[in-house]
Amino acid sequence: MIKATVYVTIKQSVLDVQGTAVQGALHSMGFQEVDKVRVGKYMEMTLNTTDRSEAEKRVRAMCEKLLANTVIEDYRFELEGA
Amino acid sequence: MIKATVYVTIKQSVLDVQGTAVQGALHSMGFQEVDKVRVGKYMEMTLNTTDRSEAEKRVRAMCEKLLANTVIEDYRFELEGA
Repeated sequence: MIKATVYVTIKQSVLDVQGTAVQGALHSMGFQEVDKVRVGKYMEMTLNTTDRSEAEKRVRAMCEKLLANTVIEDYRFELEGA
Repeated sequence: MIKATVYVTIKQSVLDVQGTAVQGALHSMGFQEVDKVRVGKYMEMTLNTTDRSEAEKRVRAMCEKLLANTVIEDYRFELEGA
């Protein structure tokens, strides 16, 4: 079993409306020190495989095909376990 | 400037419908090795402060009040920088 952790974030060049909304909400609640917020997705998966290099290829394919919209999003992932 | 990274995840005891949907989609795309998926939120913030222990208290308060729904979600965060 390999555990994969995938992080999907909006590209720096793309306006993050959700982040801007969270920042506005935090400001209005008195958290004035919050300068910039960017919101992304975080996914944890367990994979029924023990081949790490194969898992890396497969997770990359999942990100490209489904998990991230690569036009506006970046992704990165970490693998843990055998 | 302190950089805070916040991870918000659905509690283990709560059904993660979004994760189940992603798992189903991955299976139907041929990624049969995917065993379990849990989807969470990932937030990066920059804070206009240099007091790390104060920042920790403030980020915890932000999580409790806005960023996480503590009834069904867990959160954790990391601080980086002075």
